[in-house]
Amino acid sequence: MEKQNRNRAGNAAQHRAGPAKALRSRSGPRATSPRRADAASPAPAVPGGAAATDDTFITALELEAAPLNPAMAAYFEKCREKLGFVPNVLRSYAFDMAKLEAFAAMYNDLMLAPSGLSKLEREMIAVAVSSHNRCYYCLVAHGAAVRQLSGDPVLGELMAMNYRAAKLSRRQRAMLDFAAKLTAEPWQVEEADREKLRKARFSDRDIWDIAAVAAFFNMTNRVASATDMRPNSFYHAQARTQ
Amino acid sequence: MEKQNRNRAGNAAQHRAGPAKALRSRSGPRATSPRRADAASPAPAVPGGAAATDDTFITALELEAAPLNPAMAAYFEKCREKLGFVPNVLRSYAFDMAKLEAFAAMYNDLMLAPSGLSKLEREMIAVAVSSHNRCYYCLVAHGAAVRQLSGDPVLGELMAMNYRAAKLSRRQRAMLDFAAKLTAEPWQVEEADREKLRKARFSDRDIWDIAAVAAFFNMTNRVASATDMRPNSFYHAQARTQ
Amino acid sequence: MEKQNRNRAGNAAQHRAGPAKALRSRSGPRATSPRRADAASPAPAVPGGAAATDDTFITALELEAAPLNPAMAAYFEKCREKLGFVPNVLRSYAFDMAKLEAFAAMYNDLMLAPSGLSKLEREMIAVAVSSHNRCYYCLVAHGAAVRQLSGDPVLGELMAMNYRAAKLSRRQRAMLDFAAKLTAEPWQVEEADREKLRKARFSDRDIWDIAAVAAFFNMTNRVASATDMRPNSFYHAQARTQ
Amino acid sequence: MEKQNRNRAGNAAQHRAGPAKALRSRSGPRATSPRRADAASPAPAVPGGAAATDDTFITALELEAAPLNPAMAAYFEKCREKLGFVPNVLRSYAFDMAKLEAFAAMYNDLMLAPSGLSKLEREMIAVAVSSHNRCYYCLVAHGAAVRQLSGDPVLGELMAMNYRAAKLSRRQRAMLDFAAKLTAEPWQVEEADREKLRKARFSDRDIWDIAAVAAFFNMTNRVASATDMRPNSFYHAQARTQ
Amino acid sequence: MEKQNRNRAGNAAQHRAGPAKALRSRSGPRATSPRRADAASPAPAVPGGAAATDDTFITALELEAAPLNPAMAAYFEKCREKLGFVPNVLRSYAFDMAKLEAFAAMYNDLMLAPSGLSKLEREMIAVAVSSHNRCYYCLVAHGAAVRQLSGDPVLGELMAMNYRAAKLSRRQRAMLDFAAKLTAEPWQVEEADREKLRKARFSDRDIWDIAAVAAFFNMTNRVASATDMRPNSFYHAQARTQ
Amino acid sequence: MEKQNRNRAGNAAQHRAGPAKALRSRSGPRATSPRRADAASPAPAVPGGAAATDDTFITALELEAAPLNPAMAAYFEKCREKLGFVPNVLRSYAFDMAKLEAFAAMYNDLMLAPSGLSKLEREMIAVAVSSHNRCYYCLVAHGAAVRQLSGDPVLGELMAMNYRAAKLSRRQRAMLDFAAKLTAEPWQVEEADREKLRKARFSDRDIWDIAAVAAFFNMTNRVASATDMRPNSFYHAQARTQ
Repeated sequence: MEKQNRNRAGNAAQHRAGPAKALRSRSGPRATSPRRADAASPAPAVPGGAAATDDTFITALELEAAPLNPAMAAYFEKCREKLGFVPNVLRSYAFDMAKLEAFAAMYNDLMLAPSGLSKLEREMIAVAVSSHNRCYYCLVAHGAAVRQLSGDPVLGELMAMNYRAAKLSRRQRAMLDFAAKLTAEPWQVEEADREKLRKARFSDRDIWDIAAVAAFFNMTNRVASATDMRPNSFYHAQARTQ
Repeated sequence: MEKQNRNRAGNAAQHRAGPAKALRSRSGPRATSPRRADAASPAPAVPGGAAATDDTFITALELEAAPLNPAMAAYFEKCREKLGFVPNVLRSYAFDMAKLEAFAAMYNDLMLAPSGLSKLEREMIAVAVSSHNRCYYCLVAHGAAVRQLSGDPVLGELMAMNYRAAKLSRRQRAMLDFAAKLTAEPWQVEEADREKLRKARFSDRDIWDIAAVAAFFNMTNRVASATDMRPNSFYHAQARTQ
Repeated sequence: MEKQNRNRAGNAAQHRAGPAKALRSRSGPRATSPRRADAASPAPAVPGGAAATDDTFITALELEAAPLNPAMAAYFEKCREKLGFVPNVLRSYAFDMAKLEAFAAMYNDLMLAPSGLSKLEREMIAVAVSSHNRCYYCLVAHGAAVRQLSGDPVLGELMAMNYRAAKLSRRQRAMLDFAAKLTAEPWQVEEADREKLRKARFSDRDIWDIAAVAAFFNMTNRVASATDMRPNSFYHAQARTQ
Repeated sequence: MEKQNRNRAGNAAQHRAGPAKALRSRSGPRATSPRRADAASPAPAVPGGAAATDDTFITALELEAAPLNPAMAAYFEKCREKLGFVPNVLRSYAFDMAKLEAFAAMYNDLMLAPSGLSKLEREMIAVAVSSHNRCYYCLVAHGAAVRQLSGDPVLGELMAMNYRAAKLSRRQRAMLDFAAKLTAEPWQVEEADREKLRKARFSDRDIWDIAAVAAFFNMTNRVASATDMRPNSFYHAQARTQ
Repeated sequence: MEKQNRNRAGNAAQHRAGPAKALRSRSGPRATSPRRADAASPAPAVPGGAAATDDTFITALELEAAPLNPAMAAYFEKCREKLGFVPNVLRSYAFDMAKLEAFAAMYNDLMLAPSGLSKLEREMIAVAVSSHNRCYYCLVAHGAAVRQLSGDPVLGELMAMNYRAAKLSRRQRAMLDFAAKLTAEPWQVEEADREKLRKARFSDRDIWDIAAVAAFFNMTNRVASATDMRPNSFYHAQARTQ
Repeated sequence: MEKQNRNRAGNAAQHRAGPAKALRSRSGPRATSPRRADAASPAPAVPGGAAATDDTFITALELEAAPLNPAMAAYFEKCREKLGFVPNVLRSYAFDMAKLEAFAAMYNDLMLAPSGLSKLEREMIAVAVSSHNRCYYCLVAHGAAVRQLSGDPVLGELMAMNYRAAKLSRRQRAMLDFAAKLTAEPWQVEEADREKLRKARFSDRDIWDIAAVAAFFNMTNRVASATDMRPNSFYHAQARTQ
């Protein structure tokens, strides 16, 4: 049994009410997992959205969802209200409340707290880093965020494919060049690199934030790749038109 | 004057009727090119599609479009009928009829002629190779083709982001692994690699076709990157839903 | 003034009692920073330990330490009791209590909470990852931890220099090979890699922990490199003999 | 039978007259292929040149040569007149006339049509690109072309081994640096790279040609490596003395 | 028997007096080699130093020590007098007097003969190169030499971990940048690189010496890695305090 | 004056008889060095061989040749007798007799002393390593040696271009794969790599020799690249026909 079930979570009702056991529900062996069939025979679209078919598989690891504590239950509820769903990355951490809370706290501080970087700029860093690391989960989820925040469906594609092809301000280009170098060759980052950011009018606090966001996605890209984390299917069609 | 105009072409009417001179029309200096403004202030969507605003810039090179010869005029017309537009890669070659004809002949043979590989499989190779090379033009144009041919909007994303994350048949995985190795380290490809394809039931003729398609996109990725080729904006929203 | 002071913190008394202003104290221009003089004329050893001379410089960024909130003041105090000093990474985050708390929560959960991996194994992953990324801060601080936890001064060197040269159990070698691949080429990690860990008797929960620790140090290596973070000098001589 | 014969073609008479079947003639199993024996026991030199022994093996793929159509028969005949032999790359494509014609058309346009680049310069690009990709076929065939066109046997060696060691004009060095970057990291090529070519007095049309030649050999290097294509033995001794 | 014994040498008395046979003494199969047990159960420290337990294993190759000729016997004796032990690299070459003498002659000339580079600078190059190549033997032995010669225990760590994090003079930084580029990408080294050294006031003879030392450690790193050479345990604790 | 002369040596008579001063003779500024003119206007071939024009430039460093001591004078004389010239690598070391003697001793022992590897096999390693490092000097000089020793002009090209394309015995392929890995990623070489050599029937002593030769050319490739060492022109046409 253990080897045939993977990290997954049930529907919202289960999340809110159920004990840990209720959260394990994928049936059948790996070989017939819905994921594996994707390319060959995509599941038919169902009323109410693709999420119904695609989102039952979250990671390749068998980790039983723990009961949500009140803070995290409220957080998940807030996700459902604002987004219509709970991002799979949160569900992947839900086997352990301490880990989930630590991840959520760091994520929310980095991406949403006041900063000299706009939310869009932080998402642009997220996607450019994830592009270097070729992280499917993060490219899908944060590519959608760039499209959404910018109202520019092309900008999300440019960040995901090659940010160097985008026509950016000098400031944003300097920001992404720093993030890209920090991702690819952190051992080569030196004072000259920080000076380039300062010349593009970033403060030292901004430099911290650029570094911290780029570094964070170097972490989360690797958690996602290590566990074969799958994005909510909702993201794919999100904000595709201006 | 010469340095201020880039490779571009006018509307369909101009293509059909006009002399070469009429095809040069971008006004103003580089610094105010429409491309550069994309991220900061995306052009407003217009009735009839994004193509109207985005497609006036094709490459970074000043190459005056030559008059289309009858065969190429007919080919462009056929593109308009079938696709609704002429792919920018063809317009980028239109400064020289011999080059345009050679490119079109090779492209059409490789991607459309009978083969043991389906058209979708050939497009999957195109996108996986372009992903390695991070070619914006080819990822946009051929990512759309994978979505279109497969009816699976997610498959296009998987090919563009990291084909290793896709759930593929053994045959298709072997095909893409060969194409990826041939792209990244052609000097390491040996008999053992060909044997893996044969074991996945590819014939020697199929191996040629896998190699030829992967090799062709290693060429066209580089022409696109060298010239900053821009995809028709039409592609972005194409086939995004099942 | 702003450009001449770098991220730093005063002594313990200041941390406990003082307002933010009191925490900024490095005087003089960059060119005469104590760091720059290290190689040429190392500061004379003083009774009571190297920390006295070396630890006034923490990062290359000018970030004013914020007043510690009660929880973080208690945490710093606990560090002083247990270690004799506050690790510089914590002081580098101390310009913002939300960031400091999020970092501390994630760090402590990953490295100290119950896990199928021993604390030593988690530190071995930390150092092997930091070796790939050539992160000076993390190699010094966590190399010392490996020496300390293992009682084996050579093991810390092996992890920092090339874990492949260490004579490890099959389990530990598999663990570090996974962490190294996840660090170098996260896009190549697949089910076969997870299966190797399962064959080495790691549970799926253990795999999460290996991935999460390796991923975390890929983050913190980059924060350290981006900011030129300097380790407390105390670490250098720690646990050098059996 | 199929697995024991490889892509090959008979002598000129067969090419001109014979049906497809006649073109398949390699006997014996792979293990005793003449190629495999090369290093251990090189075939004895025969009067009239090495081509007689070496050129019966063309690629590792079993692809039956198709009857040459009149245009291609004339083309092969012209090769024999001018070169004394048909280059193996053409024979490797001869299983399909559409592919052979498309390849020949593109090759001849790129390498022989009027251009701001001399034929020697185009061959220098070919060899520098093939050196990066370590393509045996192309290094042998186009290295000979550089020797032949330049009358400088050393220049061919320099292009094949490391063009950076050659003493070149600023123009030629800029041309090869662009080609090398486009080969190794096409995703990094940007306006600044094109500007370097313009400063070395290349026109935008010249830039297209540099890009197109470099891109073409990135294609043909990969077709050759994927199929283990073997150069005509004639090339080895060609133009070795001034 | 042959496969169970590895390159090793007995104690000093054996070296001085014994015939070749006497020098082969490791007993027991590979699986229980003392090396393999290091991490799991470090040998207890013994009075007189770690060398007693750790230094019986030198390389992974079975090479019988040859009788030392008078010159080499004198050299080994001198090592014992000055260092307290014979460096394992010398013992690893002691299976053949011609090889040992050639190695010792080149090593001593490069590292000890008069040069515009100080002995410390030559050791800094040795460690920076060995860090790129992640050579355990050389990092341990020459890291100790940097600590010893500089009287700065931190400098040895910086060279071994990432020389770019060290605060160096412009001269020393230029020297190490040249050595690092020559190590990582020798094919890219050109006149411009030599000019940088000349601008940092190195003479052409100094450039030779920088190149020769960097090149030598690129050799010896590979001999050590190829043979799993193990450093004398003495080095680990050497010069750890100022 | 010093900056305008490069490492060079006069004719044999000067070597034998002359003081150091007599050996410095290149006149004129760098910009008009004979090397720089090579590609543009190759010197006319002269009766008696290309060496007469090409061999006056040896390296880019100004190092005055020292008087040859008797042993080295005899060695140079022997070179002239056997080869017809003194290899430039020896002349490049001739500014210092200790360095020249150490280099010659190590080279001769490695390449000419009795070994389980044939002289041809040692030269094959030399060229395969030099190909990875793209060392012009070593590819020219040792490529010629492979052609000479094997009597197979193609084998030299294969080693220089891509040894993987050569049809080799299992033994020789294993030998070159080990040398190539040791060159590219010495930190990854482990017991499993040595076992592959043992399975190909190499003794531990043979493994030492493979490692030592590969390592030596990793040294000498870098001395050559660092100094822009130029091969004697004699090599280019040597042994080009069977």
